Amino acid sequence: MALPMARRAVFCRLKSGNRGLGSSGPRAARIQIAEPRVFSGIQPTGAPHLGNYLGALQSWVQLQNGYSSVLYSIVDLHSITVPQDPETLRQSILNMTACLLACGINPDRSCIFQQSQVAEHAELGWILNCLTSMPRLMHLPQWKIKSQKNEGSVGLFTYPVLQAADILLYKSTHVPVGDDQVQHLELTQDTARKFNNTYGDFFPIPVALMGTSKKIRSLRDPSVKMSKSDPQKLATVHLTDTPEDIVLKFRKAVTDFTSEVTYDPVLRPGVSNLVSIHSAMTGLGTEDIVRQSRGIETAQYKLLVAEMVVEKLTPIREEFQRLQGDVGYLKNVLNSGAQQARELASSVYDDVCKMVGFR
Amino acid sequence: MALPMARRAVFCRLKSGNRGLGSSGPRAARIQIAEPRVFSGIQPTGAPHLGNYLGALQSWVQLQNGYSSVLYSIVDLHSITVPQDPETLRQSILNMTACLLACGINPDRSCIFQQSQVAEHAELGWILNCLTSMPRLMHLPQWKIKSQKNEGSVGLFTYPVLQAADILLYKSTHVPVGDDQVQHLELTQDTARKFNNTYGDFFPIPVALMGTSKKIRSLRDPSVKMSKSDPQKLATVHLTDTPEDIVLKFRKAVTDFTSEVTYDPVLRPGVSNLVSIHSAMTGLGTEDIVRQSRGIETAQYKLLVAEMVVEKLTPIREEFQRLQGDVGYLKNVLNSGAQQARELASSVYDDVCKMVGFR
Repeated sequence: MALPMARRAVFCRLKSGNRGLGSSGPRAARIQIAEPRVFSGIQPTGAPHLGNYLGALQSWVQLQNGYSSVLYSIVDLHSITVPQDPETLRQSILNMTACLLACGINPDRSCIFQQSQVAEHAELGWILNCLTSMPRLMHLPQWKIKSQKNEGSVGLFTYPVLQAADILLYKSTHVPVGDDQVQHLELTQDTARKFNNTYGDFFPIPVALMGTSKKIRSLRDPSVKMSKSDPQKLATVHLTDTPEDIVLKFRKAVTDFTSEVTYDPVLRPGVSNLVSIHSAMTGLGTEDIVRQSRGIETAQYKLLVAEMVVEKLTPIREEFQRLQGDVGYLKNVLNSGAQQARELASSVYDDVCKMVGFR
Repeated sequence: MALPMARRAVFCRLKSGNRGLGSSGPRAARIQIAEPRVFSGIQPTGAPHLGNYLGALQSWVQLQNGYSSVLYSIVDLHSITVPQDPETLRQSILNMTACLLACGINPDRSCIFQQSQVAEHAELGWILNCLTSMPRLMHLPQWKIKSQKNEGSVGLFTYPVLQAADILLYKSTHVPVGDDQVQHLELTQDTARKFNNTYGDFFPIPVALMGTSKKIRSLRDPSVKMSKSDPQKLATVHLTDTPEDIVLKFRKAVTDFTSEVTYDPVLRPGVSNLVSIHSAMTGLGTEDIVRQSRGIETAQYKLLVAEMVVEKLTPIREEFQRLQGDVGYLKNVLNSGAQQARELASSVYDDVCKMVGFR
C-alpha cells in the first residue's frame, strides 16, 4: 500500500493584533514551526477486523517510520457515547492495547495511551464547545444518521468537538483518516481557525493523511463495509480468527457465476472486494493483480487470498494471545503512554488557559 | 431573612444487582451516609449588585454556619459560553474572589475555588453528557430563550450538564438556587438518578435550598430584575457603589404618585421593590415593615432604605477595595481552595471511573 508520506511543514503564523495576550502571555512559545506530529484514535470496542487492519492499523505501523512524533489513543471517552458494560470496557481497553502492539505499533516509537487518563482532552473539549456553533454540529451527516437510529445522547451529538480537542491538544499536524471521517477533520480545522482568530494564532491546521487502500467490504454482502457488529458470522475476518476460520470465511465469500478474476466494484463487487484485500495486503495495484491472476478461477483465487491473509494474520494473532497473558506489561505500556501524553498535553493546555483568561 | 437550614441527611442506598462492580470496585466506599455538603457557583463577570447580594451572597455567608462542608466555585468555564475578553476575565476572577471575601465568605470555613483549576469538572461533564438525552436538554426553557437571541454555541447548549457535574463532583447534598435555576437542579437530580440506575447507587440526590428573599428589581423599571448589564445607569446598585451613588439611585427610584408605603407588587411594583429590599436587608416580613413605616412618605422612605443599604454595603466596599490591592492573598485563597476542591473531586472521580470501566 502506497503511504502518503507528505511531511508538509505546518507553520504557525503570528497574526498582528492578537487578542488577550498580556506581557505574561505565551507569545514566545508560539512563534515556531509546528513539529510534524501524527495523531489518531481507535475505540476500545471488540477486536479489530481485517478492514480495520488494512484500512488503518497497517498504515499506523508505517507512519511510525515517517514521523518522529506519533500518538495513538484508545479513545474510551468516545466509546461511552453509546452504552457500554463497564467490565467489558475495562477488558477491551487492554485487548486493544495488545492488538495495537501485536500489529506492530512500537511503544518506543509511538505513544499509545488511554484517552480518559489525560484530563486535558475533556478540558479542551469544553473550551472548544464554546467556540462551536450549534448549527455547525447539527449539520454533520453522522449525527443525522445516528440520531435517527435512537434517541441519541448529548455525548453522541458533541463527540466531534471532543475529537477536535483530541487532535489539537497535541498540536497535531497530520491525521490519518478514512473517507467517512473527512467532515470531522474539517470541523477540527474550522475549530482550530476559530480559536486562532479569537485568541491569536496557536494551533497548526492539521491535514488529512488519506489512505490509498480500498475500503474492505463484508465477505457475505459486498454492498456494505466489513463491520465488527455484522450479525452474519462469516462476513467479517477478525484479527483473532484461526487459520481454519479464515479459510472457511474466504471459501464461503459471496462472488458471482463468472469464474475469471477481474476488478469491477460496480458489476462484480464480490470478486473485486477480494482483489481489494489482495491489493491492500501486498501494495500491488488492482490492474497488476488482475494481470497476475489471469487463468485462475474464482474458487482458486479465494483460497489464494485466504492463504495470504492467514500468513499476515497468524503472527499478529499469536503475538496478541501472548500479550493478553501479560497484563502487567500492557498496563505498563498504557501508564508510560499516559505519562508522555500528559506532558505534551499539559504544556499546550496551560498555554490555552492563559490565552482564554483562566490563568 | 429566614434561611432554610434543613439539614436533611441524604442517604446512598446500595441497590442489589449493581452493574459494573468488580471485586476491586469502590463498593465499600459507597456504603455510607452522604455528608451534608453545600455547593454553589457564581460567574466571574463584573461586580455583583445588590440583587446578587440579597438574593444569594448573603445566604451563602449564613450557610457557612449551618453546614460543615461548603464549596463556592467561581465558574469561569461557564462564563465562556458567551464571548469574554481574556484580560478582563482574568481580572474578574480576582475581583469576584475579593467580593466573596468582602461579603463575608470565610476561606477557613468555605472552599472558594476557580472551576477551571479542577480538571474533574470537565471530565465528569463528559461522562454525564453521555447519560443525558438530547431532547431532555433541548426542552430546558433557558436554552429556548438564549438560543433565540443569538446563534448559540454548543457550550451554551450543554452548560446545564456541566452544572450537574459541578454539583455531583463533590457528592453535594444541598444547593442554594434561585427560582430560575430550579429546572437546572432538576436536571442534576435526574442525571444523578440516571447514573445511579446505570452504574449502581453512588450520587446523593441533591436538594434545593430555596431562598425566601424576594427577587430584587431594577430601580428604574420594576418590571425587570436588577441586572448588571442594565443600560440604565441608575437602575442597578453595585456592591462597589459609593454612598453618594447609592443615595442618588434610591432618590431617583421609580415609584408612583401615592405617598404611602404599602406592599403590592402588582399594583405598586416600585415601592414594593423598596419594601422587598428593606425586608431582605433586615429579615423583617413585608407586613411588619409596612406597619413600621406608617406615616412615612415615599420620598422619605427611599432615603431610609438608601441609608440602610449604605450602612450594609460600606464595610463590604471598603474591604473589597482593600483586598483588590492584595493580589497575592487573593491568589493564595484560590490556590488553597483549588487544592481542597481537587482532593475531594479526585476521590469521587476515581470512583466514577472505576464504575464506568475506565480504570
